[in-house]
Amino acid sequence: MTLRVLTGITTTGTLHLGNYVGAVRRAIEASREPGAESFFFMADYHALIKCDEPDRIERSRLQIAATWLAAGLDTQRVVFYRQSDIPEIPELTWLLTCVTSKGQMNRAHAYKASVDANLAAGEDPDAGITMGLYSYPILMAADILMFNAHRVPVGKDQAQHIEMARDVAQRFNHTFTQGRDLFVLPEASIDQEMELLPGLDGRKMSKSYDNVIPLFEGGAKALREAISKIVTDSRLPGEPKETEGSHLVQIYDAFATPAQRLAFREALRAGLSWGEAKDQLFAVIDAEIGPMRAQYDELMAHPERIEAILMEGAAKARALAAPLLQQAREAVGLRRFQPLAAPVAAAAKVKSALPTFKQYRESDGLFYFKLLAADGALLLQSQGLAQGKDAGQWVSRLKREGTAALADAPVTREGDVSVLDEALAALVAAELEAAARKG
Amino acid sequence: MTLRVLTGITTTGTLHLGNYVGAVRRAIEASREPGAESFFFMADYHALIKCDEPDRIERSRLQIAATWLAAGLDTQRVVFYRQSDIPEIPELTWLLTCVTSKGQMNRAHAYKASVDANLAAGEDPDAGITMGLYSYPILMAADILMFNAHRVPVGKDQAQHIEMARDVAQRFNHTFTQGRDLFVLPEASIDQEMELLPGLDGRKMSKSYDNVIPLFEGGAKALREAISKIVTDSRLPGEPKETEGSHLVQIYDAFATPAQRLAFREALRAGLSWGEAKDQLFAVIDAEIGPMRAQYDELMAHPERIEAILMEGAAKARALAAPLLQQAREAVGLRRFQPLAAPVAAAAKVKSALPTFKQYRESDGLFYFKLLAADGALLLQSQGLAQGKDAGQWVSRLKREGTAALADAPVTREGDVSVLDEALAALVAAELEAAARKG
Repeated sequence: MTLRVLTGITTTGTLHLGNYVGAVRRAIEASREPGAESFFFMADYHALIKCDEPDRIERSRLQIAATWLAAGLDTQRVVFYRQSDIPEIPELTWLLTCVTSKGQMNRAHAYKASVDANLAAGEDPDAGITMGLYSYPILMAADILMFNAHRVPVGKDQAQHIEMARDVAQRFNHTFTQGRDLFVLPEASIDQEMELLPGLDGRKMSKSYDNVIPLFEGGAKALREAISKIVTDSRLPGEPKETEGSHLVQIYDAFATPAQRLAFREALRAGLSWGEAKDQLFAVIDAEIGPMRAQYDELMAHPERIEAILMEGAAKARALAAPLLQQAREAVGLRRFQPLAAPVAAAAKVKSALPTFKQYRESDGLFYFKLLAADGALLLQSQGLAQGKDAGQWVSRLKREGTAALADAPVTREGDVSVLDEALAALVAAELEAAARKG
Repeated sequence: MTLRVLTGITTTGTLHLGNYVGAVRRAIEASREPGAESFFFMADYHALIKCDEPDRIERSRLQIAATWLAAGLDTQRVVFYRQSDIPEIPELTWLLTCVTSKGQMNRAHAYKASVDANLAAGEDPDAGITMGLYSYPILMAADILMFNAHRVPVGKDQAQHIEMARDVAQRFNHTFTQGRDLFVLPEASIDQEMELLPGLDGRKMSKSYDNVIPLFEGGAKALREAISKIVTDSRLPGEPKETEGSHLVQIYDAFATPAQRLAFREALRAGLSWGEAKDQLFAVIDAEIGPMRAQYDELMAHPERIEAILMEGAAKARALAAPLLQQAREAVGLRRFQPLAAPVAAAAKVKSALPTFKQYRESDGLFYFKLLAADGALLLQSQGLAQGKDAGQWVSRLKREGTAALADAPVTREGDVSVLDEALAALVAAELEAAARKG
């Protein structure tokens, strides 16, 4: 099975150069490596926990989607979607809520930190804490389990949530799907070497330090202005500069080739002025960022294009989420009511010549199935499915639910619905009869 | 606006005669009264909190749906659905979770009772408590607010949850929809005179007392057997019986006409034997229950019929839930990314002759809309909608999202999709231009 890697993207605020170097660029590079299937989602249900300003939520989602796309995320290669376009996620959240112990939520770091702050301020422990903050590890578990992700790259502070998702998956598997594990147990991948870009003042670049260099917002002008504010020592032009420990040099390094890095250091040691150094820094950053910014501006001028891309991503994501949720629902007992048994006469009638389901794989690597009538005529043709077992599950569901499943099934029907109905009934009747003979 | 009454039906276990008299029969009678729109839903997401036996969940849902249908619930008149068929409910649950304070959940009776029991047993306060138990008042708020129910008939123990739903609705309205209230503030209607049928031993009929008379399960035979076990005093045949305080008489009363009640009392006082009295009791119950039982057995033999009824109910429910959820999503900022502006050229081109949306009400009391081309040709025709504002919202959404909204919209398209696309674009362009001229 391909390794599935899932990355959630926060959708509050805009991104700065440090986010780009530390997260966006790295994640996009990783998604290009072979052997892994990458999922990127805009965590906008999560954003609601922190932000009750609708316009900010809306604006930020747009900016951040445009940023990832402009930075080169290949949406043909990865699955890129908005969390809030996948209704299967909140539904799975509820199923998981029922197997999550409250004690586990009490131990979540983010919640405990809020309680500690309240206690220190002499407040009620839960003062100002919403159920969103308290229970979001369950939503996060649903984000991950919904796509059976194997690996979730996170910062250290999020590792606990991945452990919780594992626990919840384990409890669900144990309680409801003995013998076959419905949910993959995800693993955190903690990036120890996470590049942290220094900000204007040399501390970690962060909005809370007010030391950021913008990524795209404000254009080349804002980038140049921010760079001009990078704090340096006061050595004059012509004086040799110390490159070791200079955060200006560190920022330069994040965008330069090894040869450029060497040349930049030599020039500084040889007396390059800080002003000229900043010009060179701007040039090296803008060489990488400039074309992306043009792409960003173009996207921001056409939100409907981003919408179309995200809708495609949602369709890809839901094609995976819907069958898995269906299995989870079956597992807990939320099943369709099915006919008790088909009449024996019907079974006898069709025994000699039965419709058949065929499952196969095409050269595109996707799995397909089709239903052929007893005379070989095509009745149903599926779309390509990412996993062989999905095809099997749809076949089972079509047998079980009959034409009622058509609304959801990824299939095209050929011919009249009554013909299909009869074919499915005949198949089921024959199988029941065969089972009865065996039993 | 019609008064909307919403009743949740627990889906664990089966129903006994006491449930029938105290809840089912009364609710069905109430649903026949004019002026109210009744919603009945099988609370199967809630059932998952208490029960992790999938087969029991499945079986119970089927039995309880069959019971309500057999008892005469008119699904043409009421909206009867399974909670788990409405994916809008768990999604709304998350939106409400973000505006619910944790302190409020701490005060919920059911949770506090569990904590008290744990403390009394010397356990950790949250021992064995799931997040399902803890946070279900939010799911319940979503159940109610999803359909803007005005009134929720509940027992006294549930009144607090309706208060919580009011609070959550109020907080959402206040935070996100200033000036117009998206959610109706629901009211509990506490039934003070709730008839409590006594059981075999004279105490309230309840499974926990093991004193129940079955409703349909086991057929007439089981009903007769249970009746034979009703405890009476030891007066012999021929001796006058005391009718005042006799729970056998109380049970009789629940199924008898005033004339029958009088005659039964007289016969007992005149010396009717308890054996004969039990025969008469069986007769009067079975006269009401017998035809329903036949209907119940028929339904239980055809689960697919119940499924079809519930699917119809789900479609009716979702036709109301989907537009309201859409408004809630818009309100919090989960919006589709829309084109910034249409080119002026397009606006100029169509200024002279524009397509038009018409909204109107039909004699069936439902609200409709249609889109006519500039030449009067029909482009879109809506289905009947329960509320005028729904029609307005769909028109807005179609203008905003264009043909992308077609997948969800309750409309039939006439003619080519590209024609429709152009018509909607022309309308929007004209409106933008008009707004620009005003501004």
